[in-house]
Amino acid sequence: VRAVVAYDGTEYSGFQWQKNAPTIQAELEKALERLTQRPTRIVAAGRTDAGVHARGQVIAFDPTWRHGLGDLQRGMNALLPDQIAVRDVGEAPPDFHPRFDAVRRRYQYAIHNAAVRNPLVHRYSLHVSRELAVAEMEEAARLLVGRRDFLAFGSPPQGNNSVREIFAARWRAAGEMLSFEIEADAFLYRMVRMIVGTLLRVGYGSMTVAEFGDVLETRDRNGAGPAVAARGLVLEAVLYPDDWRSEAGSGPN
Amino acid sequence: VRAVVAYDGTEYSGFQWQKNAPTIQAELEKALERLTQRPTRIVAAGRTDAGVHARGQVIAFDPTWRHGLGDLQRGMNALLPDQIAVRDVGEAPPDFHPRFDAVRRRYQYAIHNAAVRNPLVHRYSLHVSRELAVAEMEEAARLLVGRRDFLAFGSPPQGNNSVREIFAARWRAAGEMLSFEIEADAFLYRMVRMIVGTLLRVGYGSMTVAEFGDVLETRDRNGAGPAVAARGLVLEAVLYPDDWRSEAGSGPN
Repeated sequence: VRAVVAYDGTEYSGFQWQKNAPTIQAELEKALERLTQRPTRIVAAGRTDAGVHARGQVIAFDPTWRHGLGDLQRGMNALLPDQIAVRDVGEAPPDFHPRFDAVRRRYQYAIHNAAVRNPLVHRYSLHVSRELAVAEMEEAARLLVGRRDFLAFGSPPQGNNSVREIFAARWRAAGEMLSFEIEADAFLYRMVRMIVGTLLRVGYGSMTVAEFGDVLETRDRNGAGPAVAARGLVLEAVLYPDDWRSEAGSGPN
Repeated sequence: VRAVVAYDGTEYSGFQWQKNAPTIQAELEKALERLTQRPTRIVAAGRTDAGVHARGQVIAFDPTWRHGLGDLQRGMNALLPDQIAVRDVGEAPPDFHPRFDAVRRRYQYAIHNAAVRNPLVHRYSLHVSRELAVAEMEEAARLLVGRRDFLAFGSPPQGNNSVREIFAARWRAAGEMLSFEIEADAFLYRMVRMIVGTLLRVGYGSMTVAEFGDVLETRDRNGAGPAVAARGLVLEAVLYPDDWRSEAGSGPN
């Protein structure tokens, strides 16, 4: 079975199971075990960090379940806490693996750019009170697109290289909210938050677009970051070779 | 001094001070006392219930403060928790009282109308999975406008009557979100949540628009409600005779 999961990560220590810490995986496995009366291991497309949210996380599991998949989804949603929901459930292709089969991931990072902070957007955005040079941030973001070594912006898993391909990276403004959308084949550890932190330096005027390009070129980690807070980050969608994607429907969900 | 305050009410037992329970008033008074080194009592335009949010609550207080009002606002925001922010601070007119002087209040109630719940909007909306007859809900809402006795939808403060004037009541749809906006001279206890609960019965098809009109006409409380959850409700703005209003600026804040 493959399923699309949405969650508010504020109160969780990330997706992946940990001893003595609340995680999204533990909640999903607990709900599945209560529903099916069997321990069931789930695998996810991305191990989001503590505090990171998701609208389109993808998971796979092999449940002991005699009823329909609609019932499985409703049953899980009835047992899961308000912070986690199964948005969609379907039959997985044979030998499906949500992480190894994924060809693209899309993340969004939200910034609340206003003089005074707003408690009603705090949970899902970073507050920046200084004025930002958005045109320069857009120009720098365009330099990210392409296949290259992103070592300046994050660490690869042990033994792996840090070459990734970014397909799209752009800023969008709506009133006081500014959001950064980025799509790549895969991401290094903390990569999106490091990139946003570095783009903010361009926005503050403490780094030029050319200097941003140099960091990218020289892979110099001292020029990059710091990583921004987890709460502005949302895993939006994961894409697969069969053109199936864990995209949210219409509307601001 | 009069100030505009925004808050996420989820973790608070309402606005008004209570013994042994966290309230917005207590947090504001604590921040003021730490800042000015004197206990300072604040008065608010509306005593929002437990779990209710605000973008445009109005408060007044008389601080012992030698510095500018901008410094007062920055100082309070530095001391207040993330859930509460002072959006604006200004000199109050002489003898200003935020509740008695207010001429209009505006609230908004948000409904997430979709088959599956969404954890990222849970905190600020009620999830309704059934399809809603929005045209009928709009028709019923229009019947609310005018000056009349709203006893069916709430209780007046002791010894007072339950006649109120509603200036506007309308639904707005944006994707999966449906929001109800209502403006009146004043509201009875739980009135907005009772009205929304009754309008939802019209939306479900279990009450006709004519029956909604009858409840309004006969002031029969058995036909109304039930009150919907507090978390969808936001105090948007309070208006005063000098045309000053605690309105939020542009953008989705």
